[in-house]
Amino acid sequence: MIVVMKSGCTQADVDHVVELIRQLGLKDHIIVGTDRTVVAALGDKRGIDKGSIENAPMVDRIVPILAPYKVASREVKQEPSVVPLLTPEAEIGTQKIGVIAGPCSVESEAQIMDVARRVRAAGAIGLRGGAFKPRTNPYDFQGLGEEGLRLLARAREETGLAVVTEVMSIAQIDLVAEYADVLQIGARNMHNFNLLKAAGQCGKPVLLKRGMVASLDEFLLAAEYVISEGNPNVVLCERGIRTTETYVRNTLPLAIVPAIKRESHLPIIVDPSHGTGHAYMVPAMCRAAIAAGADGLMIEVHPDPEHALTDGAQSITCEAFEQVMQDLRAVAAAVGRTS
Amino acid sequence: MIVVMKSGCTQADVDHVVELIRQLGLKDHIIVGTDRTVVAALGDKRGIDKGSIENAPMVDRIVPILAPYKVASREVKQEPSVVPLLTPEAEIGTQKIGVIAGPCSVESEAQIMDVARRVRAAGAIGLRGGAFKPRTNPYDFQGLGEEGLRLLARAREETGLAVVTEVMSIAQIDLVAEYADVLQIGARNMHNFNLLKAAGQCGKPVLLKRGMVASLDEFLLAAEYVISEGNPNVVLCERGIRTTETYVRNTLPLAIVPAIKRESHLPIIVDPSHGTGHAYMVPAMCRAAIAAGADGLMIEVHPDPEHALTDGAQSITCEAFEQVMQDLRAVAAAVGRTS
Amino acid sequence: MIVVMKSGCTQADVDHVVELIRQLGLKDHIIVGTDRTVVAALGDKRGIDKGSIENAPMVDRIVPILAPYKVASREVKQEPSVVPLLTPEAEIGTQKIGVIAGPCSVESEAQIMDVARRVRAAGAIGLRGGAFKPRTNPYDFQGLGEEGLRLLARAREETGLAVVTEVMSIAQIDLVAEYADVLQIGARNMHNFNLLKAAGQCGKPVLLKRGMVASLDEFLLAAEYVISEGNPNVVLCERGIRTTETYVRNTLPLAIVPAIKRESHLPIIVDPSHGTGHAYMVPAMCRAAIAAGADGLMIEVHPDPEHALTDGAQSITCEAFEQVMQDLRAVAAAVGRTS
Amino acid sequence: MIVVMKSGCTQADVDHVVELIRQLGLKDHIIVGTDRTVVAALGDKRGIDKGSIENAPMVDRIVPILAPYKVASREVKQEPSVVPLLTPEAEIGTQKIGVIAGPCSVESEAQIMDVARRVRAAGAIGLRGGAFKPRTNPYDFQGLGEEGLRLLARAREETGLAVVTEVMSIAQIDLVAEYADVLQIGARNMHNFNLLKAAGQCGKPVLLKRGMVASLDEFLLAAEYVISEGNPNVVLCERGIRTTETYVRNTLPLAIVPAIKRESHLPIIVDPSHGTGHAYMVPAMCRAAIAAGADGLMIEVHPDPEHALTDGAQSITCEAFEQVMQDLRAVAAAVGRTS
Repeated sequence: MIVVMKSGCTQADVDHVVELIRQLGLKDHIIVGTDRTVVAALGDKRGIDKGSIENAPMVDRIVPILAPYKVASREVKQEPSVVPLLTPEAEIGTQKIGVIAGPCSVESEAQIMDVARRVRAAGAIGLRGGAFKPRTNPYDFQGLGEEGLRLLARAREETGLAVVTEVMSIAQIDLVAEYADVLQIGARNMHNFNLLKAAGQCGKPVLLKRGMVASLDEFLLAAEYVISEGNPNVVLCERGIRTTETYVRNTLPLAIVPAIKRESHLPIIVDPSHGTGHAYMVPAMCRAAIAAGADGLMIEVHPDPEHALTDGAQSITCEAFEQVMQDLRAVAAAVGRTS
Repeated sequence: MIVVMKSGCTQADVDHVVELIRQLGLKDHIIVGTDRTVVAALGDKRGIDKGSIENAPMVDRIVPILAPYKVASREVKQEPSVVPLLTPEAEIGTQKIGVIAGPCSVESEAQIMDVARRVRAAGAIGLRGGAFKPRTNPYDFQGLGEEGLRLLARAREETGLAVVTEVMSIAQIDLVAEYADVLQIGARNMHNFNLLKAAGQCGKPVLLKRGMVASLDEFLLAAEYVISEGNPNVVLCERGIRTTETYVRNTLPLAIVPAIKRESHLPIIVDPSHGTGHAYMVPAMCRAAIAAGADGLMIEVHPDPEHALTDGAQSITCEAFEQVMQDLRAVAAAVGRTS
Repeated sequence: MIVVMKSGCTQADVDHVVELIRQLGLKDHIIVGTDRTVVAALGDKRGIDKGSIENAPMVDRIVPILAPYKVASREVKQEPSVVPLLTPEAEIGTQKIGVIAGPCSVESEAQIMDVARRVRAAGAIGLRGGAFKPRTNPYDFQGLGEEGLRLLARAREETGLAVVTEVMSIAQIDLVAEYADVLQIGARNMHNFNLLKAAGQCGKPVLLKRGMVASLDEFLLAAEYVISEGNPNVVLCERGIRTTETYVRNTLPLAIVPAIKRESHLPIIVDPSHGTGHAYMVPAMCRAAIAAGADGLMIEVHPDPEHALTDGAQSITCEAFEQVMQDLRAVAAAVGRTS
Repeated sequence: MIVVMKSGCTQADVDHVVELIRQLGLKDHIIVGTDRTVVAALGDKRGIDKGSIENAPMVDRIVPILAPYKVASREVKQEPSVVPLLTPEAEIGTQKIGVIAGPCSVESEAQIMDVARRVRAAGAIGLRGGAFKPRTNPYDFQGLGEEGLRLLARAREETGLAVVTEVMSIAQIDLVAEYADVLQIGARNMHNFNLLKAAGQCGKPVLLKRGMVASLDEFLLAAEYVISEGNPNVVLCERGIRTTETYVRNTLPLAIVPAIKRESHLPIIVDPSHGTGHAYMVPAMCRAAIAAGADGLMIEVHPDPEHALTDGAQSITCEAFEQVMQDLRAVAAAVGRTS
């Protein structure tokens, strides 16, 4: 951490900052520049609020130097992590692109079985489908609950697809873990730290979606919450951020893919359905995500999007999904991967 | 809802949209403009995904007309709501400004009792203080837990201040409700719908903070989740949003005050501590919030911000708080209120 | 500037950075921390791209320490600047709040004379009105041009109000300066550096609006462009920024008022018309801006907003303006000022 | 346009809105819904401020239906436009990807000739290089001016590359057009409407960069300003937008590529250098842009980024550029294009 003093500070002001730094168990190092004095605080103490020093007299601001995450970082683990979803073939983080597809919500047995068969045939390794739905509006369809989970499990039995479904609260974890292979933490819960801890304790792989405007640090710290509980199997998922743009539901910032690859060993996949909000954009953004180096995709597919109970506008048809998977083959090959 | 067709759509395309609208139980109304055809869907059916129609052929986009919230709206209840926090004097939504003050975290008995006495003397009606802390970083101080709650209750006994403290998970609700007068739902949990429902069932007044980039609709829908469970005592709290600005921790958008007053009967208070992130800005933004018509304030006050365990940079001293309260008197009077 | 090295960097990597720092004419200072090595570059050389060092091997990132602006900063000039608009009474930056009001566009002699008389009577010191309009849409009304300027000058003759009007290009400066008292640089031109320089050379006071998402540094650097040409008479104007919010046309971040007061000696006023986009919000935000410490306001007033040729939705009526001015008296007094 | 009335409006309120609509020369059409009444205003009148109706009593809000742009839209011209930069081979908008590369600023003859030869050999069709630089900071390097233009022209003579360089003001247009093949309008000038018109009159192709937070409508309207002057040769360029993200200089929203393809016939290229701000991200985002369907790229290449006078942090080396071009071959082929 660097403490930048205001211009005109006195020796007493600097001494006071030095004292505060020492109280935190850190080592101080003063640099007197031509215009400003800065005090470096050396050491890697955690669990202390270094920002409080900003309140000392004549302190201009605090600049953190160290990244706040540890076990999610490349510094701690150099080689990329591979996260097994279910069978040896259903992994994320290998040379093969891992695609998870399915409807926003499980609506009926016919619907989920139909989608499962078709996305499996087209090359997906995971089946997504919401049983418990986080809905902004209390009057909207809230999911089939346990019945939805049962239908997902049945689809796995027949197709061998790994089941990925969202868990919205600690109370749901045991139930969801009974049926699902991967627990999804949604964007709205990325900052729900108690849920992250509980998911970490459950033992199942966790698919962690980036919060609506989470910073890269916050994203990796959320993963750190899961990993800290002894669960290294975290797949990061970029699903778009809220910005000033209005022609999309969310802006999909694909540069996070090389950024995560630089900072962390965790695999990262991209969800172009939430990441754009419009079905017509999904194929282009699937290709772009893979070209950017993503380890996989999560795509909303519905047999009849016009009648979908949720997220119809951003769901693609089974036919469109088949085309996407075909197109991805060449894109994956172009970046040295397979699909 | 208005369905805007693309230019060049055929009668069959329009007929198909009409069919979809009727399947949703809505009434259709076609308007053929000079350049575009639009189809209005009349009716107020809830629990259906009207957005799915966007996926129909030659549909350009969907424009919602009705606000998605009901019981939080002025249409349903014209007169402003008053929310009792504890005693008859501790209310939010009256002509008197209601100020809730206290440290970010409860750190010790000495700290919380000291702050409580001083903010009470200066005119606060509520005492804030975190016992369970939502921390982005798993290595940071996570709060004193139940011990913190006990200290808050002791402070209430002595000072008569209403205790406002955050509840982060459903499992904490009973415990927190045992000690606290008002349950705070933090910004990171505004989209945690299960928690909102459980808080609504608990019966205690709820202080609901706006999510980091929540829209006005989403903010009121979160309140709607609480109210729908039979609990009308919701105080909205603006605490700043994440934007492109970097000289603040959050941007404090005070125009939400007149906007909420227009759309809803719920009282709204402002948190200039999180809303700026810097102690030096807090007094100015306290005055501005009251001048804009806010019903109250939530302010972080610490006896020794330089040594605060959390949020030191944005906490003001007890002396600064006393000055703020004194300055607010004239501002409140200028807008026809008392403090 | 601080150069943060990646963990695992070698002595050669550090030596290379030191070499680059010295090539820039700066002094180096190495700090070896427990986890990271950082190299401070001391000195205040301008006109060099220090960011290029980010490209050197094993450099993690660059952290600037010094603010990039000079003559606009409080470090260079401690006492607040007062900018004369026209007569001794028409000043911005004194204890008296300075209000500039008028229509978005000059539409006719009757319109501008009517507004001028009424805002003058209500206490305004300046008259705003666009003669050249920056319109996003090429098909929209583009202003009356020189005829508009003539009408503004006529209004000044009768009322004594200082005329504030926008200049959109260098070619317009001489013409506008012939009629106007203050040159306004609009938000869309805050980054138009050639225009800023030319405005600085013209000699008339400049009212500089913040760009749509300009940072505080960029805002002050734009002022620096004007001042560097020998013109110290710059009034900053906050007019709202583009964010994720949709219930407003722009989000009005009033914390910029205390921030500018801390960093700069320049006066700052607030435009709640563009800053919200909706007439019903304007009175509340006028009060809030003054309570936050703003030196004045710029308000769009139209005798008949329903028929305004531009910005009707955010223009208030003359009657509403009179009410605003009356309400401001108490608010100004509450913060130790007059209106 | 749709005028949404507030609930509780009277017949007189609706009649008043109808009257206002008719005064604008539009046709009215009333729809009485179950909860709200809306009034559609039919017709495509331009140059009028329909938003002013928002100020009428009991109007809730205005919803525009028609896109504001005309000649840039697909409705007016279905087939994609091809923009010739220089020779028949140097075109943007064909099946072949068009890459424009070069340094941020022209610094010296050796530098620009070196880069020009190498990017030409690697497959670029255009040479970028700033002679007039829009610098946020008045103390920074402002470009070589006309000498820079001369060096660019010399590089074209030798390599046959089309010269693309920025024009910052109307006064520079003639000079720049004398040397350059394509006039670049920078992001900071996208809203500089006088400059857009002047560029449109000049006759040379225009490369138009998206403004920092310009909406899609504003982007196409800026193009409309150029086209309206009789110049159809506009290449759109996405260069990233300012968002809440901090690990990038700008967020690169590639979904704008399919969006523009849907709304407009104009070609669109992507600038991953400004679009990310960090050299290490550029190759991944080049691949992603092409995979998303972009018609080309604009890339900052410098022989020695560590010593670049401007934008060093985001410039890639000539060697890195050669690798990018090689990698793009397979990506382009994967989406049915050549590079």
